Amino acid sequence: MAAPAQNMRIDGGRLWNSLMEMAKIGPGIAGGNNRQTLTDADGEGRALFRTWCEAAGCTMGLDSMGNMFARREGTDPDALPVYVGSHLDTQPTGGKFDGVLGVLGGLEIVRSLNDLGIRTRHPIVVTNWTNEEGTRFAPAMLASGVFAGVHDQGWAYARKDAEGKSFGDELERIGWRGDEEVGARRMHAFFELHIEQGPILEAEGKQIGVVTHGQGLSWTQVTITGKDAHTGSTPMPMRRDAGLGMARVLEKVNEIALSHAPHAVGAAGHIDVYPNSRNVIPGKAVFTVDFRSPDLKVIEDMEARLRTEAQAICDAMGLEVAFEKVGGFDPVEFDAGCVAAVRKAAERLGLSHMNLISGAGHDACWINRVAPTAMVMCPCVDGLSHNEAEEISPDWAEAGANVLFHAVVETAGIVE
Amino acid sequence: MAAPAQNMRIDGGRLWNSLMEMAKIGPGIAGGNNRQTLTDADGEGRALFRTWCEAAGCTMGLDSMGNMFARREGTDPDALPVYVGSHLDTQPTGGKFDGVLGVLGGLEIVRSLNDLGIRTRHPIVVTNWTNEEGTRFAPAMLASGVFAGVHDQGWAYARKDAEGKSFGDELERIGWRGDEEVGARRMHAFFELHIEQGPILEAEGKQIGVVTHGQGLSWTQVTITGKDAHTGSTPMPMRRDAGLGMARVLEKVNEIALSHAPHAVGAAGHIDVYPNSRNVIPGKAVFTVDFRSPDLKVIEDMEARLRTEAQAICDAMGLEVAFEKVGGFDPVEFDAGCVAAVRKAAERLGLSHMNLISGAGHDACWINRVAPTAMVMCPCVDGLSHNEAEEISPDWAEAGANVLFHAVVETAGIVE
Repeated sequence: MAAPAQNMRIDGGRLWNSLMEMAKIGPGIAGGNNRQTLTDADGEGRALFRTWCEAAGCTMGLDSMGNMFARREGTDPDALPVYVGSHLDTQPTGGKFDGVLGVLGGLEIVRSLNDLGIRTRHPIVVTNWTNEEGTRFAPAMLASGVFAGVHDQGWAYARKDAEGKSFGDELERIGWRGDEEVGARRMHAFFELHIEQGPILEAEGKQIGVVTHGQGLSWTQVTITGKDAHTGSTPMPMRRDAGLGMARVLEKVNEIALSHAPHAVGAAGHIDVYPNSRNVIPGKAVFTVDFRSPDLKVIEDMEARLRTEAQAICDAMGLEVAFEKVGGFDPVEFDAGCVAAVRKAAERLGLSHMNLISGAGHDACWINRVAPTAMVMCPCVDGLSHNEAEEISPDWAEAGANVLFHAVVETAGIVE
Repeated sequence: MAAPAQNMRIDGGRLWNSLMEMAKIGPGIAGGNNRQTLTDADGEGRALFRTWCEAAGCTMGLDSMGNMFARREGTDPDALPVYVGSHLDTQPTGGKFDGVLGVLGGLEIVRSLNDLGIRTRHPIVVTNWTNEEGTRFAPAMLASGVFAGVHDQGWAYARKDAEGKSFGDELERIGWRGDEEVGARRMHAFFELHIEQGPILEAEGKQIGVVTHGQGLSWTQVTITGKDAHTGSTPMPMRRDAGLGMARVLEKVNEIALSHAPHAVGAAGHIDVYPNSRNVIPGKAVFTVDFRSPDLKVIEDMEARLRTEAQAICDAMGLEVAFEKVGGFDPVEFDAGCVAAVRKAAERLGLSHMNLISGAGHDACWINRVAPTAMVMCPCVDGLSHNEAEEISPDWAEAGANVLFHAVVETAGIVE
């Protein structure tokens, strides 16, 4: 076996055309996509992907969570496959690249290997994980989570969308429930190419992010209770203003995150005050604090300090405060060998690169629990994602897919 | 003419019974009332009030804004009437006393004068002002505003409710549009009894508030624009968090109001962030700052400082900020003679009293522009109003109505 030659390349034009072709399915209203999981559009997207995979000589496996596995055989019947992929489902107002690039980048590897007549020792399996987005059926990364043993399949089947339809029924309805047991497959390694969904690579002028860690996440919903009162007839000293209490806690959240610079982050994206009327002092404020860090101890410290500091702020203002942990996952440290393969690929290809910590969750974060895993990231314009205006350049896509190609093929082993 | 005798009293039991009888019309869902303006229930309430007034020997006038004027004749045909009243309409989840106490307190004066066989030189007119609350048809104090020349009647007629129905059509529909020209009446004086809708009297243990001023109001809607971004994948220094910017402005609002203690107040009751999703840093925050003071210069200073300080905060954070004045009225200084009549009445009756500044807007604030005006306030439990749980004690109602009685009758002049 040899490392991939320096001049081995995927076909960037073909990859881009496939991305554009897939984007015709489930079009959005503003140039992006609405191909939510287990909709008819998702079924169409899956069918197109299967057609392409079969045309590339792959056989398609399908498990009972609807996860798709397109296999290109290796030469060694005892070698576990190298998996590569991401997801084809999108946000309701999603972009053309979030997830899709990782799946079609995997397909492009198979096509390029076919073009070049290259055989690998390990099989290569291109995967589409069901319901990564989690907007129709919460939580995100649902099917890779069942695969990795994080969630139970019965629980996953019972997840309901806003109309009360269940995941299990909808999977059956679109005809993509397979017989294969979820999580039974064993992997030699897993690689996922994804757009960054953040602004760092573009700002730093780097073509490739070598993802070393996935940030851990903690969501704490904070409920501050004061007293509804008239904004005019209540003297300042008699107010118990839950909105002002929230403002002080938000400042503290920022301070706590900055105390763990540069990797920790903190903010509140969800904020509601009640009764939310111009002439009533808010009697209640409910908001969710999102803390992330690649270091579990840092997350635990931020959570604890939030509770202590918010309690002190509210005590001083005559407010009550309650905390509920409404979400979280532990930080991920990707496999050193797989990460090295990604970095080596970028170097071999002469692409500028830097280490990145993934701020968002990805299927790779769950698969890392059951297989050596790494991620490749490419920039996206202005860091914008989960938005129909999400954009990348064909060059960025090509560079990312070439790194994925080299990392996967080196891990799968070229048979001379 | 003589001042009212120290032992002249209204009938507190009859007043309370009338309040409870009126509260049966347009019942709420939690013990209060939903008798919104120009609904069928409002029509029923008006009819009951008319029946009571006519039974008390009054003649009913009705103007083209639906304002009702129940007149008890005086002895001097050249003397302008003393007006007394408030409003019968309620909030959607309103209480039994806000407004109603002032109207039925006025009626109780007429009934008591009848009982006592007292004639006054000036006629006494008990008034029900249409649409004080302004929740169905904005703005509040609509018909007293037209009466005082603040609003145009055509504009008022065109005000629409949430279903698109206009004020003019609904006034016609319930059969309470009169022919009388609005604002044509001239007044010797106007007195309004109202529950405090704030916590001061109860906290200070006083039975009567002698209202010397009405606070002026300024509503500034602030829109802070940053950039929606993923809460995980956006490094802290690259964030433009409109929610954090808002938090800092809210702290400043509090500081500005406190700098004008004790009379100025400031808060934001209305707060919205966008897209309001747990994992998206708010790209936009919209909130309304409510500043009030009895001193116009203070209001202008607070408004100006809000704009300067919020601009500085946002400039430092890379945020944009825009301001829109969405509401306001100037402070009111009630008529010295009418205020003195209220204070003297409380003293004559041996009731504990204190000066108050009305934090909320009232019909009296508009009528003060066209006639010598004052207000009497009585406590309400826990300062609660605009809430079905709004509560006062029969003793408080009786004390307030007795002060109103003495102030009105002294101003109207007893004919010996």
